[in-house]
Amino acid sequence: MSGGRLGGVFAAVLTPFDDALAPDGGRFAAHCRWLLDNGCDGLAVFGTTGEANSLSVAERMELLDGLAASGIEGRSLLVGTGCCAVPDTVELTRHAVGLGAGGVLMLPPFYYKGVSDDGLFAAYSEVIERVGDRGLKVYLYHFPKMSGVPISLALIERLLKAYPGTVVGLKDSSGDLDNMTAAVRAFPGFAVFSGVDHLLAELLDQGGAGCITAVCNVAAPLAAVVYRSQRAGNAKDGEEANRLLSGLREIISAYPLSAALKEIIARHGDDETWLNIRPPLRRLSADEAAALLEKLNATGYDLPAAGRD
Amino acid sequence: MSGGRLGGVFAAVLTPFDDALAPDGGRFAAHCRWLLDNGCDGLAVFGTTGEANSLSVAERMELLDGLAASGIEGRSLLVGTGCCAVPDTVELTRHAVGLGAGGVLMLPPFYYKGVSDDGLFAAYSEVIERVGDRGLKVYLYHFPKMSGVPISLALIERLLKAYPGTVVGLKDSSGDLDNMTAAVRAFPGFAVFSGVDHLLAELLDQGGAGCITAVCNVAAPLAAVVYRSQRAGNAKDGEEANRLLSGLREIISAYPLSAALKEIIARHGDDETWLNIRPPLRRLSADEAAALLEKLNATGYDLPAAGRD
Repeated sequence: MSGGRLGGVFAAVLTPFDDALAPDGGRFAAHCRWLLDNGCDGLAVFGTTGEANSLSVAERMELLDGLAASGIEGRSLLVGTGCCAVPDTVELTRHAVGLGAGGVLMLPPFYYKGVSDDGLFAAYSEVIERVGDRGLKVYLYHFPKMSGVPISLALIERLLKAYPGTVVGLKDSSGDLDNMTAAVRAFPGFAVFSGVDHLLAELLDQGGAGCITAVCNVAAPLAAVVYRSQRAGNAKDGEEANRLLSGLREIISAYPLSAALKEIIARHGDDETWLNIRPPLRRLSADEAAALLEKLNATGYDLPAAGRD
Repeated sequence: MSGGRLGGVFAAVLTPFDDALAPDGGRFAAHCRWLLDNGCDGLAVFGTTGEANSLSVAERMELLDGLAASGIEGRSLLVGTGCCAVPDTVELTRHAVGLGAGGVLMLPPFYYKGVSDDGLFAAYSEVIERVGDRGLKVYLYHFPKMSGVPISLALIERLLKAYPGTVVGLKDSSGDLDNMTAAVRAFPGFAVFSGVDHLLAELLDQGGAGCITAVCNVAAPLAAVVYRSQRAGNAKDGEEANRLLSGLREIISAYPLSAALKEIIARHGDDETWLNIRPPLRRLSADEAAALLEKLNATGYDLPAAGRD
């Protein structure tokens, strides 16, 4: 991490719920700690995988407070704050900055489709100016398949010009290496993260900052080997980890991601509570779960056990 | 309106903002009153046109309280309450039911795409059971192009079976008359509203309940003629109004709807404050506004003036 930019391996952290579907702050903090102890350089909480948009603003703020109270340092957090309504995004972003978050990961307002870059610029601008804090570091969140609202390179350019030092990076979940590479080349110093595991190594070769992925909830140690090998100038040392990481992603992403990952965490920690998931997402069926676990076992990959409770 | 089902002409009411982009309760109530005095049987507040998803939950509740305080009767309101997060939808829905709303118009959770009917059923079910009020009347909101999350006939069937008397209708903004007609035929007594003006007459012929549209913010008197003529068994008497209504829709819907309608209301009432719009939506450019108004003038349609302030 240099010049205030985050870098490295980030899990798009799962959010656990209790049996009444209320957010489970204890399990959340324990999972975050385990991730930091096992390969993660930082934590992207409240992203797509973390069911952020199934949480109210108040629930997200309470979970954040819980992380702070449990001793997770703010600077390791990249907090998802982008809501449909600007006042919600402002409130969450202020709260994250107040807790010393390393950055915020900001979806564009995602209900209205086909909006102009002008409208998206105005939305980001409104949030940045209302928050009005030099400590704010914004990472834009490009996930067109889910949000329906892409973030163009032209929009990034305009935001970088208007808010240098505040708009500092991008999570690109498009799965399109060309788009990530174009952003790295067009904007020197701009921190571009891959939202998919299997493009981490290639993106690093092109000057990218790291990855922020769902699969890192269970495979961060592998991504860490890829990352550290490349940074040490020995990318070859990370090739085997990269193959296994990409294989795991292929297996897991054949299922709805949050549900599949919750299944793995629940089995790993022998804790069925981890299966709880808020609608509209659903847990895997028993057949799906069995098939997933069988395929994972066949890879020979073992999750680190230490610190699970 | 029969058997607790709403029917007739509803405007998808615009939401005015002051110059700081805060919701403007005074202009909102005045506009609602004017609509009820000029062709509307009821008001669908906080829909797509009303920038609902650009408002926080607290802002929507405060605007509702303001309407109640201004003397707008709850039973004429169809309140948009569908958010991404179930706790938000529950809170808003409870508030609307508490104010005696005639119904709530409920988008499915719309961030996650490609979710199963199972997941959507669980989301609606969770809200209905948590609200737990016999006064609750749910109208489902099918707008696949905007929400990205369609409501299938199979889902409607399942919800009607589980919650008879609570799930009572549908706003269909797909623009697909076949889909609306299929819902009318499949589910007797189910109130199907067209989300587009030009299909109102045809949907009524097929047994539909009415319309809920953006253009009714400025053209409700025409839709009212169409509706009342058909209900009186003299659909022919509504043909001229229907032609003009469809023509107005064609003109207005060539522009972003909320912006175009705010432009018309602002000019009509000589009140520039009405131009304010929250990002990511933007007001029309001066050229767009001039072209729109010129085309509207050419139709010869006059907005009713009474009660504008």
